[in-house]
Amino acid sequence: MISCPIPFTDYPNVLLAHGGGGRLSQQLIQKIFAAQFHNALLDVMHDGAVFAVEGGRMAFTTDSYVVSPRFFPGGDIGALAVYGTVNDLAMCGAVPRYLSAGFIIEEGLPMEELWRVAVSMREAADRAGVSIVTGDTKVVDRGKGDGLFINTAGVGTIAPGVDIAPANARPGDRIILSGAIAEHGIAILSVREGLAFETEILSDAAPLNHLVQSMLAAATSIHVLRDPTRGGVASALNEIASSAKLGIEIDETRIPVRDDVRGACEILGLDPLYIANEGKLLAFVREEDAPAVLAAMRAHDAARDARVIGAVVSEHPGLVVMNTAIGGKRIVDMLSGEQLPRIC
Amino acid sequence: MISCPIPFTDYPNVLLAHGGGGRLSQQLIQKIFAAQFHNALLDVMHDGAVFAVEGGRMAFTTDSYVVSPRFFPGGDIGALAVYGTVNDLAMCGAVPRYLSAGFIIEEGLPMEELWRVAVSMREAADRAGVSIVTGDTKVVDRGKGDGLFINTAGVGTIAPGVDIAPANARPGDRIILSGAIAEHGIAILSVREGLAFETEILSDAAPLNHLVQSMLAAATSIHVLRDPTRGGVASALNEIASSAKLGIEIDETRIPVRDDVRGACEILGLDPLYIANEGKLLAFVREEDAPAVLAAMRAHDAARDARVIGAVVSEHPGLVVMNTAIGGKRIVDMLSGEQLPRIC
Repeated sequence: MISCPIPFTDYPNVLLAHGGGGRLSQQLIQKIFAAQFHNALLDVMHDGAVFAVEGGRMAFTTDSYVVSPRFFPGGDIGALAVYGTVNDLAMCGAVPRYLSAGFIIEEGLPMEELWRVAVSMREAADRAGVSIVTGDTKVVDRGKGDGLFINTAGVGTIAPGVDIAPANARPGDRIILSGAIAEHGIAILSVREGLAFETEILSDAAPLNHLVQSMLAAATSIHVLRDPTRGGVASALNEIASSAKLGIEIDETRIPVRDDVRGACEILGLDPLYIANEGKLLAFVREEDAPAVLAAMRAHDAARDARVIGAVVSEHPGLVVMNTAIGGKRIVDMLSGEQLPRIC
Repeated sequence: MISCPIPFTDYPNVLLAHGGGGRLSQQLIQKIFAAQFHNALLDVMHDGAVFAVEGGRMAFTTDSYVVSPRFFPGGDIGALAVYGTVNDLAMCGAVPRYLSAGFIIEEGLPMEELWRVAVSMREAADRAGVSIVTGDTKVVDRGKGDGLFINTAGVGTIAPGVDIAPANARPGDRIILSGAIAEHGIAILSVREGLAFETEILSDAAPLNHLVQSMLAAATSIHVLRDPTRGGVASALNEIASSAKLGIEIDETRIPVRDDVRGACEILGLDPLYIANEGKLLAFVREEDAPAVLAAMRAHDAARDARVIGAVVSEHPGLVVMNTAIGGKRIVDMLSGEQLPRIC
């Protein structure tokens, strides 16, 4: 990693003036953000980025990232801010193209941390194949923020024939999960609570757009895609059941959870179904498409462990029912309150 | 105004759980944001909004809003978040179409305040003719934020033939200012410092996109547009002089400042050239286009007082020089530090 180009001796920490729109703002933007993200569109340094598009459909999405701590096993707030928005575009069936980045910095943030986050965002953008083309920096006074919040928005293009939305689920659809769950949430929580496990549990934070493109190549007619982030698999399935006004049945024994993650959940009294993931997806596909989609997924590192975990049913519309490991059935409800604050 | 649909008796203040991705999150989003912003794209409640575009060029921009106080004479953080991003798109010569909205709420924010902000954003979006089509809500723990921060990003379409960028300024270009300056910054500061003037000074916060469309109808060949927000007219002109590698000359006597604003600046020891505006623009146009552009501007309420304040010159590249009221010349430099924190 190239060292931070703003000398720490001059400005070891971000000052209010770095957000004031004057010379120090320009220096911060040029030497940290522009130095890392530079590309033909960003370098124009206009009020916005201008790019050509072909006619068709586009997807547009946004998320703010307030994760605490900012650096955690397997990722950091910067990588999360890129992958999260890339993945939201991918869940619309879009090819992510351009991201914006808005930084809300608390006065006093070490300049070196901001630099590390910018480096991480650039690496994440490279991995996902997107460009950060426009941005904004604000600084709030000490005690009025929490180090760093990042908002990213993104735009992407959708190929003809692709039509993905939660309401598109149909009875008989197979529900595919791309891999083991709950790793991101447990990685964050283990740092926050100072828990140590035999093996370090890493966040699964990863871009899913290349995986989705392979899936769409296998079956354009995928009905629904959803990344089970905040609220986990349980919340994502409930939202889809509610949107589609259909029932969902899943099998507990088919949902992969790593042993160490399951152990951590037991110690903490948490249900892995409600824990956030940042590199997993749920796909709803016609029964006849499931084998081809599964095969396409398993060819990717991000989804070697993909499997069918359930199906859409006409019964109990709006409800998610799980066949439990011990042979019973239980309703997997929407979480009512807060399980893990500031997980993303 | 319809009263807030989340009963204050149940939830008078925003809880951490309102950002957790569960049932309370859904309630907040549905009853406050979706209730206000609803439109066909937002109502899908997917991970992103999907819309059709014609081939051509698009502009994409973002800004975060951290203004303190959140409500001020002539506006509030919600209206500012809409107009600011609409105006950044307009400054690219784009017709603003769709906005995203990301909310970072501090635990404990009165629910009624959030509702008022959502109402204000919807009114501002209606006035500007844009739709808020996708969004995100995060809640941070008490003491880790400052009530409410809002990020908006926006996309817009650019008509064929329009080519606006800071580097496009040319020697001989006339510089047009759309009206009196420094009102937004002084409105904020007067609240913050508890200053009272004979007449209340209101923020000039307003959408500039309709004005820009009239200007482009008068002369497609406008070279540069810039709204002088943070850092004021002085910073905007310096950035353009630096991008275009040309000099700028302006006349102090031609720059309109309302008497009460000038008085407030004198009391506070501030130079109006460096104070933020949120409803004014600078346009760089060929000398022969200036009369038509000025006439088009003066037909708009937002720019009745538009006038030429200077010109682009080949001399002193990168420098802004002002002919002062008392007959001298001075360099109008980029502000080095912080003048007014959290002005937008």
